[in-house]
Amino acid sequence: MTSRVPTSPGRAGRDALGRVAIVGAGQVGTMVGLALQAHREHGAAEVALFDREPATAAASLELGAGDRLLAGAAEALAADTLVLALPVAEVVGFLRTYGAGVSPGSLVLDTASAKEVVVARMRQCLPARVHAMGGHPMAGTEGTGPAAARPELLRDAAFVLTPVRPDPVALARAWAFVRALGAHPMEMDAGAHDATVARTSHLPHVAAFALAAVVGRAAAQPWFVPGLAATGYRSATRLASSDPGMVASFLWANGPEVRAGLGELRDWLTRFEAGLAAGPERLSGLLAEASSAGTAVS
Amino acid sequence: MTSRVPTSPGRAGRDALGRVAIVGAGQVGTMVGLALQAHREHGAAEVALFDREPATAAASLELGAGDRLLAGAAEALAADTLVLALPVAEVVGFLRTYGAGVSPGSLVLDTASAKEVVVARMRQCLPARVHAMGGHPMAGTEGTGPAAARPELLRDAAFVLTPVRPDPVALARAWAFVRALGAHPMEMDAGAHDATVARTSHLPHVAAFALAAVVGRAAAQPWFVPGLAATGYRSATRLASSDPGMVASFLWANGPEVRAGLGELRDWLTRFEAGLAAGPERLSGLLAEASSAGTAVS
Repeated sequence: MTSRVPTSPGRAGRDALGRVAIVGAGQVGTMVGLALQAHREHGAAEVALFDREPATAAASLELGAGDRLLAGAAEALAADTLVLALPVAEVVGFLRTYGAGVSPGSLVLDTASAKEVVVARMRQCLPARVHAMGGHPMAGTEGTGPAAARPELLRDAAFVLTPVRPDPVALARAWAFVRALGAHPMEMDAGAHDATVARTSHLPHVAAFALAAVVGRAAAQPWFVPGLAATGYRSATRLASSDPGMVASFLWANGPEVRAGLGELRDWLTRFEAGLAAGPERLSGLLAEASSAGTAVS
Repeated sequence: MTSRVPTSPGRAGRDALGRVAIVGAGQVGTMVGLALQAHREHGAAEVALFDREPATAAASLELGAGDRLLAGAAEALAADTLVLALPVAEVVGFLRTYGAGVSPGSLVLDTASAKEVVVARMRQCLPARVHAMGGHPMAGTEGTGPAAARPELLRDAAFVLTPVRPDPVALARAWAFVRALGAHPMEMDAGAHDATVARTSHLPHVAAFALAAVVGRAAAQPWFVPGLAATGYRSATRLASSDPGMVASFLWANGPEVRAGLGELRDWLTRFEAGLAAGPERLSGLLAEASSAGTAVS
């Protein structure tokens, strides 16, 4: 395998990024761009941005996430490091449309929160000489757009890397990219990632939207008293402020695992309801069992 | 109706609290005691604490939540203002055991998060000349015990008051008590409170415990990858750190409304699952519908 970007022994990672193109300049793309700009010494020769919404691209550039804008997605194909900071359905769409045209020797990495679908499509659509890697930064906010980007969240955050093909160069360069953001690379199998994140991230999103829906409907009832939603409610429904299109995209892409998790969630709700009927002691025991394992998980 | 504590025209609320006894010196009782001590000019002649756990009572006193400890719950019956800062099942138990012995003319107020059960029991167990009021501060943390008390959360927080009998003195004195904490009194019907709080607070607790249970179980599976639970997970499961006994107590006390809310939550999960099968556009529409109403609720 070849790399278009020269690397020298002992300087692993340095200069490894070359010309970076970020496709998708929303919250995640802007966060990544700002983190790269803050660690320029790690080797991004330039950071170019593209977003199909010109206003989004302009706002991201204005915040300092890149050096310049690209006029079209196709211009990103010539980059040394191509970052697809898009919802998973759009990552898949990009790979289908442009994958065959990505420059040999470049690194392609995405940031979407479902990885099996992306990795399979990268394998299908990218030429063998392209270094491909699935990526998922475990950092971000429920906000949307460049203004919601908080690059400091990447500091010491886990950044998942899911290999596409046996390719040490892809791994070394993706590793260097993650380190340049100030984050920690975590290499793992795409399937293990998707099964885990279905429970730790995707299911909490579904629950937050469902809680918001229940309370939203209740708020239209004559008996509802406004002003009683306290910090607990805001904490439990924070994720329901996420962009519905993005959430639908990752839930759909991780469909089988999300469905399994939904079944598990429903089973616990049913157990709690049975406990409620059995009395407070039984219910307390079930809640204690539920809490002890889950609140210790990192 | 008579009041043992003299009040003078134009000083409504001032001096109205007299000798205060707080039964239950955990997170809520300590929070209330600390807030009273910080606003001593509002008329608490003294603040005495009781907890059936001597260590809890001592810790609360040490933090400054009261002036002295009571040796037994019965000593609290002589107070001018008796605050039952207990889980709802214990409030009910206290009223059953001691209610008939509460001093005529005193104010009795609780802080539990289910009000119909408490109000009905106050009506049954307290002599007619006792001024009774259901109370629920919409402030607190998921922590347990005196050390988790954060009295600053009461500042400008809503403090629900649910009348027990037609009794203007009870209302005036409870109002003065809430103002002395720095909080805002909100008078409402106990049933409206319970139906609302079932959705805005009790159901989010159930969901948080269920999510924690799912992830706790997943964490024992071979495919689970530790280290991927990000801020979204912690936010969604924050309420699962609450004391299981306390949560079981209020879920049980508000059983019918919690069961109704659980049914509504399950209906939305089922709709999302159908949306997942129908594709990302349909799912995105459902999520947007869920989010728009619910995230605007206060």
